[in-house]
Amino acid sequence: MFAEAEADPILSKDEFKPLEERLRAALLNAQYERLRKADKSLLIVVAGIDGAGKGATVNLLNEWMDPRHIRTLAYGPREGEELDRPPLWRYWRDLPPKGSTGIVFGSWYAPLIIEASRKKPNAEKIEAQAAAIMRFEAMLAAEGVQIIKLWFHLSAKAQKTRAQHLLASPETAWQVSPVDLKVNKRFDRIRAGGHVVLNHTDCGHAPWVVIPSADENMRAARTAEAVLAAMRQRGIPRIPPAFVAHSGSTRIVDRLGQLDYEAKVDKQDYESELGLLQGRLARAARSDKFQQRSLVLVFEGQDAAGKGGAIRRVTHALDARQFDITPIAAPSSEELARPYLWRFWRRIPRHGRIAIFDRSWYGRVLVERVEKLIAPAKWRRSYAEINDFEEQLVASGALVLKFWLAITPDEQLERFREREKSPFKNFKITPDDWRNRDKWREYAAATNELLTRTDVPHAPWHLVSANDKRYARLQVLRHIVEAMEDQL
Amino acid sequence: MFAEAEADPILSKDEFKPLEERLRAALLNAQYERLRKADKSLLIVVAGIDGAGKGATVNLLNEWMDPRHIRTLAYGPREGEELDRPPLWRYWRDLPPKGSTGIVFGSWYAPLIIEASRKKPNAEKIEAQAAAIMRFEAMLAAEGVQIIKLWFHLSAKAQKTRAQHLLASPETAWQVSPVDLKVNKRFDRIRAGGHVVLNHTDCGHAPWVVIPSADENMRAARTAEAVLAAMRQRGIPRIPPAFVAHSGSTRIVDRLGQLDYEAKVDKQDYESELGLLQGRLARAARSDKFQQRSLVLVFEGQDAAGKGGAIRRVTHALDARQFDITPIAAPSSEELARPYLWRFWRRIPRHGRIAIFDRSWYGRVLVERVEKLIAPAKWRRSYAEINDFEEQLVASGALVLKFWLAITPDEQLERFREREKSPFKNFKITPDDWRNRDKWREYAAATNELLTRTDVPHAPWHLVSANDKRYARLQVLRHIVEAMEDQL
Repeated sequence: MFAEAEADPILSKDEFKPLEERLRAALLNAQYERLRKADKSLLIVVAGIDGAGKGATVNLLNEWMDPRHIRTLAYGPREGEELDRPPLWRYWRDLPPKGSTGIVFGSWYAPLIIEASRKKPNAEKIEAQAAAIMRFEAMLAAEGVQIIKLWFHLSAKAQKTRAQHLLASPETAWQVSPVDLKVNKRFDRIRAGGHVVLNHTDCGHAPWVVIPSADENMRAARTAEAVLAAMRQRGIPRIPPAFVAHSGSTRIVDRLGQLDYEAKVDKQDYESELGLLQGRLARAARSDKFQQRSLVLVFEGQDAAGKGGAIRRVTHALDARQFDITPIAAPSSEELARPYLWRFWRRIPRHGRIAIFDRSWYGRVLVERVEKLIAPAKWRRSYAEINDFEEQLVASGALVLKFWLAITPDEQLERFREREKSPFKNFKITPDDWRNRDKWREYAAATNELLTRTDVPHAPWHLVSANDKRYARLQVLRHIVEAMEDQL
Repeated sequence: MFAEAEADPILSKDEFKPLEERLRAALLNAQYERLRKADKSLLIVVAGIDGAGKGATVNLLNEWMDPRHIRTLAYGPREGEELDRPPLWRYWRDLPPKGSTGIVFGSWYAPLIIEASRKKPNAEKIEAQAAAIMRFEAMLAAEGVQIIKLWFHLSAKAQKTRAQHLLASPETAWQVSPVDLKVNKRFDRIRAGGHVVLNHTDCGHAPWVVIPSADENMRAARTAEAVLAAMRQRGIPRIPPAFVAHSGSTRIVDRLGQLDYEAKVDKQDYESELGLLQGRLARAARSDKFQQRSLVLVFEGQDAAGKGGAIRRVTHALDARQFDITPIAAPSSEELARPYLWRFWRRIPRHGRIAIFDRSWYGRVLVERVEKLIAPAKWRRSYAEINDFEEQLVASGALVLKFWLAITPDEQLERFREREKSPFKNFKITPDDWRNRDKWREYAAATNELLTRTDVPHAPWHLVSANDKRYARLQVLRHIVEAMEDQL
């Protein structure tokens, strides 16, 4: 795998000059024709032996391409609010929009490379980390992000020579960091680690390319060729099913049909229990332990099922400083230019905070599916992507509680009519609502499927009978309070 | 000012019921007709005596209006990355888009209220803080943000009664915070502070309204009426010149005309000095002291003046992890929905980091002015807004260095022709560039004016003769290195 690179091949000036000319023009052309005009972005992951000239290569790409459409995304150890979120959060946050290129230093490979370069690497950790990376990259690729991963490599001898050469002159000595000097001693281990990483994570939709880096010309030419090949790739590459997380084949249960819609609570019981539950919620949310956790509340349900009312009963008990409500509306242009889940990742709460979603990432397997806004392949893989997303949230300390507020068609009809009559509720009812109502069965089928496929132990669904608003609100509050008291 | 509120007026249930009905319908209607359809957003600033029911009022507004278009923005003491930026940064970051409403707790008034409520308030501090607030609000108002400020008030006796009433029942006791109980003892001082704050910051485009808060119905009705009045206000209110920062009347100097365009450096001197300067820059940017500062680099200049090349010579010496380049392109839909400077505020660096702007906020007084994209009143007030913006950056620890790379018309023509011929530079030349060239004089006049009006001691302009690229690059690097070495 590294044999060619460790032979430290050279490209003479005479060979390089005409090649450079051609490559620069081709890169620019591809950047405009293939990337900016097409509906995709490019991520160039930069890794390899320290001191192989990764930094210099980034400058070169910025010089050869149009730098206005390139963002260099460089990461050190996670810190500050990054520690409150899943490890992938910072990469999601910085995903470049369609039409542009991101060059990623210190990427999602950093922990894997460190683990694989240990004296005694932990095989299970490596498998798990590699699998998570494969899922992430498969999702990106399927959402129109082209990925190319470059491993800069050279022989131990060449690495040493390069550092000494740079150190020799005061004009270039600062380019050599203490890490570059140390790496020579650990060369064999990093080399072995690189082998493991590349073997575990090389795939058609996100290939690794080893760049021989001892010679500047060779490094430049090979980098340009690899980037060019990635930009020229058309459409979305076939992603082998092995790399795609999947939710398995399950018998879909009619959970909506099995619900007891008669459940209700009388007004007096409601008022007193509401206050008590709000009191417990207030205490839980203000507890010291919650400062190390976060809460993600997802509200879904038919139109007029009472999501807004339930949310207000929850927020009534909270400090306004602590929560954010995100109503899911039409995506902005910045959101449309990124993978689907980006708009939700950007709303993930810090520790000690609460994010409330009034409708959510389930839109993809509900309205987008039923209204045929996307191809079936897209919503089918969504279940697994969503499970993966929520699993990451939970692993980072979030409590993910998902509520489905369910009403019967008759109850909905009554509420629609009531809304039309009320001067301060008629804004809530639109022609869309009536249209959705005509597709009750299709929505019910989609709902039963998502309730089955995404009812996972780390983020179970709470199906709530909501024909009686008071009953539904207490159910929601009780679930939240009990989950918080249980976990804190 | 507080006389009516301290009389603790009451609205009986019989008076309130029909009023409530009318206000709710009117609020919703205004939210849709006046706000969502118009090109503006609404900020409701919430302040007043603690324990007057501010939190309850926010819940009420969310219940009466369509909560999907309201964001509650609540702030505690500044923390984390907020401390690395100007105090207003977090408010800028969260500005709601056009068509929506932000309710602000712990607003930009918090420090002023604290200062004004001290035993011995510092009059100068109060004047300075109030003036900064007035400038901020005048700018927001001029950019289409409607502002209403609510001061919730009641008598000391009523405040005490309200807390005791809530404490009496376990269902409501949690609504009373320790601060609410303490405030009664400091009532007089907070009351006096409120007086000072309201007197200093009440104005037509961002008025204060005192809300009598002892009675729940009265509080609700008065709040709704105040919000309604704000939403119904048409257009941009006249902003008295006293509140608008201004850059003064100055004789415009022909700085572009006075420059020595013959300056040049030969290749050998260039290469050796470039390396030495890059070495010094590398050391300065990696120094411990820089971890408490940040660097903002602004690059402006005629088309083809060599901004990109100069930027690359700077970034070549930097750790890619440390800087971001922001090329100013067409604004996104999220940017268009906010005040002009929002798109730059969101790129302000943390301490220890470097933000490089390839073109910048000066676009408003350059291309937008010359191409007549905005009304003259808008770009005229921009000078002062920009000076204010940069002053805030500097006060928060940023080093703001602004470079104007200047070339002559002949040199530009030569470079344009060269670009057209070069296969890897022709993407850099567009019909726009030729059009801009036709307006050389207008651009020169706009440039000379901005160089005069925004050449402030805290953020001076460095006018760089750039007919010789090598000379210009060394000038830029030397300025940065010397400024950093001087300040660190």
